[in-house]
Amino acid sequence: MSDPVILFAARPERWATYEAPLRTALAKAGVSDSGLVLQAAPETVDYIVYAPNSEVQDFTPYTRLKAVLNLWAGVEQVVGNETLRVPLARMVDSGLTDGMVEWCVGHVLRHHLGMDVHIHGQDGIWRNGEVPPLARDRNVVVFGLGALGRAVAEALVGLGFNVSGWARSEKRIDGVSCFAGDDGLAAALERAEIAVLLLPDTPATTDLFHAETLAQMPHGAVIVNPGRGPLIDDTALLAALHTGKIGHATLDVFRVEPLPADDPFWAHPNVTVTPHIASETRADTASEVIAENIRRGEAGEPFLHLVDREAGY
Amino acid sequence: MSDPVILFAARPERWATYEAPLRTALAKAGVSDSGLVLQAAPETVDYIVYAPNSEVQDFTPYTRLKAVLNLWAGVEQVVGNETLRVPLARMVDSGLTDGMVEWCVGHVLRHHLGMDVHIHGQDGIWRNGEVPPLARDRNVVVFGLGALGRAVAEALVGLGFNVSGWARSEKRIDGVSCFAGDDGLAAALERAEIAVLLLPDTPATTDLFHAETLAQMPHGAVIVNPGRGPLIDDTALLAALHTGKIGHATLDVFRVEPLPADDPFWAHPNVTVTPHIASETRADTASEVIAENIRRGEAGEPFLHLVDREAGY
Repeated sequence: MSDPVILFAARPERWATYEAPLRTALAKAGVSDSGLVLQAAPETVDYIVYAPNSEVQDFTPYTRLKAVLNLWAGVEQVVGNETLRVPLARMVDSGLTDGMVEWCVGHVLRHHLGMDVHIHGQDGIWRNGEVPPLARDRNVVVFGLGALGRAVAEALVGLGFNVSGWARSEKRIDGVSCFAGDDGLAAALERAEIAVLLLPDTPATTDLFHAETLAQMPHGAVIVNPGRGPLIDDTALLAALHTGKIGHATLDVFRVEPLPADDPFWAHPNVTVTPHIASETRADTASEVIAENIRRGEAGEPFLHLVDREAGY
Repeated sequence: MSDPVILFAARPERWATYEAPLRTALAKAGVSDSGLVLQAAPETVDYIVYAPNSEVQDFTPYTRLKAVLNLWAGVEQVVGNETLRVPLARMVDSGLTDGMVEWCVGHVLRHHLGMDVHIHGQDGIWRNGEVPPLARDRNVVVFGLGALGRAVAEALVGLGFNVSGWARSEKRIDGVSCFAGDDGLAAALERAEIAVLLLPDTPATTDLFHAETLAQMPHGAVIVNPGRGPLIDDTALLAALHTGKIGHATLDVFRVEPLPADDPFWAHPNVTVTPHIASETRADTASEVIAENIRRGEAGEPFLHLVDREAGY
């Protein structure tokens, strides 16, 4: 059997980051890296390591393609591509997951503990009045219970928080009260003193947090969104922040990135904008995931982390 | 056997907080609460529930006293009292421990993730340049491995941090590299990218963080001190902050509290002052600890959480 041709289709600067880790990971997986290339005749390509913003948008010429291996967790820019007729694998990177857990737990604790009062209040006033409840008396809801949401929920349980979760379909996670679907949404919203949004961006999740759903949350609730910008109706969120219904929003993702300098989120005292840093794919651990999937493809084994094209994630 | 006389010796406002939880906890422990009082003839008192800042400073008249049960974890204000000749129990309160874990993990994550750049930087500039390492590549050292330090170290291990610990005497904690005594101090300091101080206040720990020990820490190290104010030589810390040797200090405890408004810590851009809020004894869980010790005293069983008067904690 000849060595597989593996096309790296992403912006050029990614190649500098990924080439060495990919070659290392392929070698560790027992796959030849001789066919790992930046350019190849489409009809010769076996696998595409893929960034959805790459130049490859028409998969039709890739006639012997076995799989497209996405470099990122989010697949919304490729999942609807009708020229793609082979398996599409999402990135489920332990480094990305770990980074997301750290960011989410950190910001949940920040809001739980009311840190900002002290971080901003270095003015000589000894503000020792308010004692936060213990984590066990704090309701946190993770919306989205895929690989990332599940890991975040489990870490919050480990710290003693009273954790619930919500997903489109039924899930089970030890120590987490799981709600599902439209029927379970109100119950999840009602207990979300702190809401962490880790849903995929699909037609069903667009603007899930709109005026009516925000109104179902506890007064003063905090939203932490490291998921996807379109999950939130921005205008409705600003209105809810204005009334105090939403006490604070820490937003890492936006419909337009970088967030324009004149966006009202920047200036709002109860909004923290972070610049899409909650987590990112790490080249070393991500390369291992890609190499393992290529090994599986070559061995005729099922691919890991396949996208359900119909559900969109 | 007559009901034990239990003197509640603390500032009057504590009685409002503790009376009901103490009566509940005593009942649950099978001990009569009929002798729980705010005032009693000293020679009739069996137990003192004690705040070191109470009016009781001379224990000599308490001739039938069986134990002094401290309301707080810190005993430095009572441990040297030579009129106290009966067992002294420290407070080891699960609520206090849980709160301390939440505060410490929150502030460690805050510094690990570099949150302040974004919390302060709501000015329209998309600062997505620096990606922090993962927790597994971040060295955190917990100084002090008593009940609180151990719980904090374990929680940090649970989040994936590379955790070390240091204590006066040898300790073992799963997943934590433990260093001990004067011989182990340099090794602990050298790896402390983030140092959490949870040592007791004793003559041996006073000014443990002085010019020479601060100089042994990594450049830009972060100090988080929810332990005791005198652990740090304040002048040396300010000097180390000035040079950048210490990158940030988040301080919850001070030699003088409230910290005077003109203290230079307030104005320093790389210092966060929090007003002794890292954790506090919670009346409900603390009352259960006190009731259990009284039950043990009445049953002739050994007391829990006894202070080593010689070591001072």
